[in-house]
Formats: sequence, C-alpha cells, structure tokens
Amino acid sequence: MKEIVAGVDIGGTNTVYGLVDKSGKLLAEGSLKTTKYPDIKDFVAALTSAISGLVSKDKTLKLGAIGIGAPDANYLRGTIEDAPNLAWKGIVPLADLIKKKINVPVVLTNDANAAAMGEMIFGGAKGMKEFIVLTLGTGLGSGIVINGQMVYGHTGFAGEVGHFIVEPGGRECGCGRRGCLETYGSATGLVKTVLFLLSDMRADSPLRNIPPSELTAKTIAEAAAKKDPIALKAMDYTAEKLAMGIADCIAFSSPEAIFLFGGLALAGDILFKPVRKYVEAGVFPNFKGTVKILPSSVPQGSNAAVLGAAAMGWNEIK
Amino acid sequence: MKEIVAGVDIGGTNTVYGLVDKSGKLLAEGSLKTTKYPDIKDFVAALTSAISGLVSKDKTLKLGAIGIGAPDANYLRGTIEDAPNLAWKGIVPLADLIKKKINVPVVLTNDANAAAMGEMIFGGAKGMKEFIVLTLGTGLGSGIVINGQMVYGHTGFAGEVGHFIVEPGGRECGCGRRGCLETYGSATGLVKTVLFLLSDMRADSPLRNIPPSELTAKTIAEAAAKKDPIALKAMDYTAEKLAMGIADCIAFSSPEAIFLFGGLALAGDILFKPVRKYVEAGVFPNFKGTVKILPSSVPQGSNAAVLGAAAMGWNEIK
Repeated sequence: MKEIVAGVDIGGTNTVYGLVDKSGKLLAEGSLKTTKYPDIKDFVAALTSAISGLVSKDKTLKLGAIGIGAPDANYLRGTIEDAPNLAWKGIVPLADLIKKKINVPVVLTNDANAAAMGEMIFGGAKGMKEFIVLTLGTGLGSGIVINGQMVYGHTGFAGEVGHFIVEPGGRECGCGRRGCLETYGSATGLVKTVLFLLSDMRADSPLRNIPPSELTAKTIAEAAAKKDPIALKAMDYTAEKLAMGIADCIAFSSPEAIFLFGGLALAGDILFKPVRKYVEAGVFPNFKGTVKILPSSVPQGSNAAVLGAAAMGWNEIK
Repeated sequence: MKEIVAGVDIGGTNTVYGLVDKSGKLLAEGSLKTTKYPDIKDFVAALTSAISGLVSKDKTLKLGAIGIGAPDANYLRGTIEDAPNLAWKGIVPLADLIKKKINVPVVLTNDANAAAMGEMIFGGAKGMKEFIVLTLGTGLGSGIVINGQMVYGHTGFAGEVGHFIVEPGGRECGCGRRGCLETYGSATGLVKTVLFLLSDMRADSPLRNIPPSELTAKTIAEAAAKKDPIALKAMDYTAEKLAMGIADCIAFSSPEAIFLFGGLALAGDILFKPVRKYVEAGVFPNFKGTVKILPSSVPQGSNAAVLGAAAMGWNEIK
C-alpha cells in the first residue's frame, strides 16, 4: 500500500481537493462548488464522499491524513471561526465533522500557514527552521515557522503580519483601522497605489484607460514591464512598504528567508529587486545581509493551495 | 548533594554573579568590576575562580550549569559579538573559555532573553508557552518565547522589537535609523518625550528645573504620580507608542501575555493603565481581549538579571 494525504483548499466560491504523495506529487484532484452547500453537514458529506471516491479508484492507495486550508481556520481547535466569506456561520468544528466520516488525522489552518507548510515540505524552505511566507493576494497573509514549527500563538490565529501598522493614520483597512501593511503591500494595495499615483502624477499611462474596478496586479506588472512610469513608481512604492513590514518581521524573529507567494509575487524581478534593496537599506543594521527574499517555489495556482494543505497533513503524520 | 546553577550578569561596568537553586532562591552572590579586566582571559580567570570559591564554601552544593546574560551575546554560538559597551573587541567565545575552566554546560544570551527565561522558570510566565518580555531601560530589549521555546532566530540575535519602526521618519535611533520603538518606549524615550513636551506645552512643571542630562524615568514617574501635567502627558504618549509596538508583536505571534520589565515598568499603573487601553483600542480586532499586559514578577534590581541568567542554566539541564 502507498500512503497518500488528501489536501483540501476551501475557498468562498470553490473547494479544490487532491491526493498528494510524500514527494509532493498530485496524483488526482477534483473540485466542489462551496456555495452549493450552505449547510455544513451537506458540505462535509459531499467532500468526504468525493475524497473516498478518489482514493478507492486506486486500490494501492491508503489515505493517511487530510489537510485543509480554509479562511479563518483555527489549527489548535480544528475549527473555522466566523468566516465572513463562507456561508457557515459561527464556530464550525470542521475537523471533528470530517473525522466522523473518515477516521484519519484531520488538520486545518488558514491558507497562509498552509502555504508556509507547503514551502517547508515540498518547496524552497526544505531544511529551513526559520522562515516566513507572505501571501500577496487580495489581502496579505503570513505563515511563520520558528524553531522548525509553525507559529499558531496562544489563540491559534498568529501570523497577521498584514496588519502591522506601517503608516500610522494611513489607508483604511478592512479590519477597521488605518495604515495596515496589507493596504499597501498586497495585490489590492498595489492597485490602490496606482489610483493614488494617477491623481498625483501627470504622466500619460494606459492605466488611465482602465476602470479602477478592473485594475489588477497583473495588468500593472505588465505595464511596469513596459516601463510605464506610473506602474513602475507604484511597484517601487509597494516594494518600499513591503520592505518596512519585512524589516519588522526580521527584527522580531531573524529568519533565514522570507518567501513571497501569490498574485503580486508573480511580478518577479520588477518587485523583488526593489524589495531586496529597501530591506537591505531599512533593516536593523545587525541583520543586513542575513535574510534571503525569495519567490515561493511551490507551483503557484490552485494546486499550490492543495499542496500546502496536503503538507499540513504530511507534517501531522510524519 | 544539592544541584545549583550559577547566574552571571555581565554589564559594561559591573558583573554580578550568584548561586541559584531550582526554586529561584539566590543562595550566595558576589560581583566583579568588568572594567578591571580589559583582557578577556583575565576576566574569565577571575569570574570562574569567584564562582568556584562560592560553590566550595558549602560542601553540599554541586554546580550544574552556568547561565550568563551579557550585551550582544549569541546563544547559538556562545559568543559575545562586537559589543560596543565592553572592552573585549570582536567575537569573544566566552562559553568555550569558561568551559575550559569549569566543565559544566555554559550558556549565554542577552539580558532581555535572560529576563524572559527568568519569567518562564521563576516568574509570572510559569506554565506559559507564548509570551514576550519587553525590557524598558536605556534601550528597549525583548525576549520572545513561542511554543515554549526561546526565539533566537537564524542568526541568534532575534528579538529586536525595540527596532520596530513605529514612526517613519521619527526620532534618531542609536542604530542609525529613525522612528524605532526604543526611541519612544524605553526609559530614555520617556525622557525624550518630556523634553519635547517642555517645548510644546506652556504648563508649569518642576521638570523645567532639572538639567535634561539628569532627567530619569523615575523622576518623571514621580512627577506624574503628583499629577504634573507634562509628566502625565509624557507617560500617556509613551504608553501609546509602546502599545503600537505591542500591537505589532501581537499581530505576529499572538502571545498569551506581554511582560514589562525594567526601570520604566516600575512606574506601575500610571504606565500600565494607558498601555492596556491603547493596546485594546489599537490591536487587530481579532486579538482584542486575548493578551494580558503584566508587570514582571521576577524581583527587579540587580538580582533579577542574575536570576534570569541562572534560569538559562536551569533550562539547559532540565
């Protein structure tokens, strides 16, 4: 029998799942519409039967664990708690509900922690004991590994680096405060910065022809690659703010590496070069030259989330 | 035989040492003038012979380990590295040098980490796995415990929370940057704030009669206790800035408690009340009400440093 782990990525719209072997190979996958199951019991029934179905297709496979990435997931309690983007309200004991259907270890955590575990088990952080993954998407999430262990904190919700205040009194954040790193350093933050620069700068730019609601990090990165002055300035400013958050992370835990993951990180050198420059210039002097700023080496896209979730499962049974 | 540990606190001027039993009782103590030994070999000879002398006075004692707190100490390497306030230049392999004289486990770390270990082994953090100690003295140091383990980071120098940037472009810091937490939230920061407020406010105050070079946190706390408006405002502002740094710590690692230690923390309620208020108002909403802000319960004064250093030793052999 070959042991495998199921990785599950629960999103507001879709849930993607897959079977992953010890080397990080995705052997089979599938998906469900999360929105089709407003009752958590129906969702658990559909998900567990889908996983069991995938496993039973190959008689040589044995399911060892289920790892789940989900918004507002609490690893310590195995729950999803008050998730604004999911239909299931209150505190949902998802791990227990699944275990009643499939009796293997079930672990869940948020997508940023899953990404960090994916990086540690299958990606560029193999063998590292001190690193941080920043996920730069709609928001800015963080998964932190210290002494070789994921940091969950006393509440189970540690890793809210996106809510470092980098600009006191700055931009409004969804958390109700102002000046949080995620309002500057996420894909959404980059879009906000472009909007500001369109007001501040006189330069002509194709970005002036796109409705603000349709601006994306990808469009801006492409414009920057073509030397659009507003896109370039926006990328540089985003890097500067990201570097401020990264410098505080380094002051706290002195990691070996910081990995950037997700939509904005796909911009590549046009983001990484200024981030590295501003980190070196702005970090506490004793830490100059001690930290690598790296792109995630887990394949990006929907599979990365499934791999990360599966890594959580592998870590549980290793 | 009763096992004991030697705790050593190396300061720029004095070195204090003592024998500490498992319950945190200081059985004997002594001190050396650090400045009398510009050659590290002479210092090691004097220190080890002083410790051996203390131990040999009571034939029932057996030395189990030596724990040392020192500026710029690296736990991972057992070294003191480029300490600007000590005569020994470059990288000093202190643990190895001592082990050659007294063959027991020798560990060293900076004073903030030693304070955190003291809190965990002998103080208010007994049984806690997630907490941070902030030492509010001339500078602002931090000792961080996550998953029950001290955080040293990849370099061995983690825990520079005093160098979070809380005010971009703010006050000059000794590290060469501007706006670091320690320029606002340390005892020295409080003095700077009083100086600013003496320029900004018209209120009469006995603080106007003290030469700036003689102003101390203690004097200011005493004036605040007597309702001096400038001292009160300074204490409130210091608390607000400290709370900003604390909020970022909480966003990172979601601790159970933050302990305040050292000169400024002795101000008591006049500091703790506004710190708690600003932390609750300013922290990422999910963490409201999850963190205790507490005074250190290791006895303050020179003994606290010796106890913290001894706790490092006890932790090593436990």
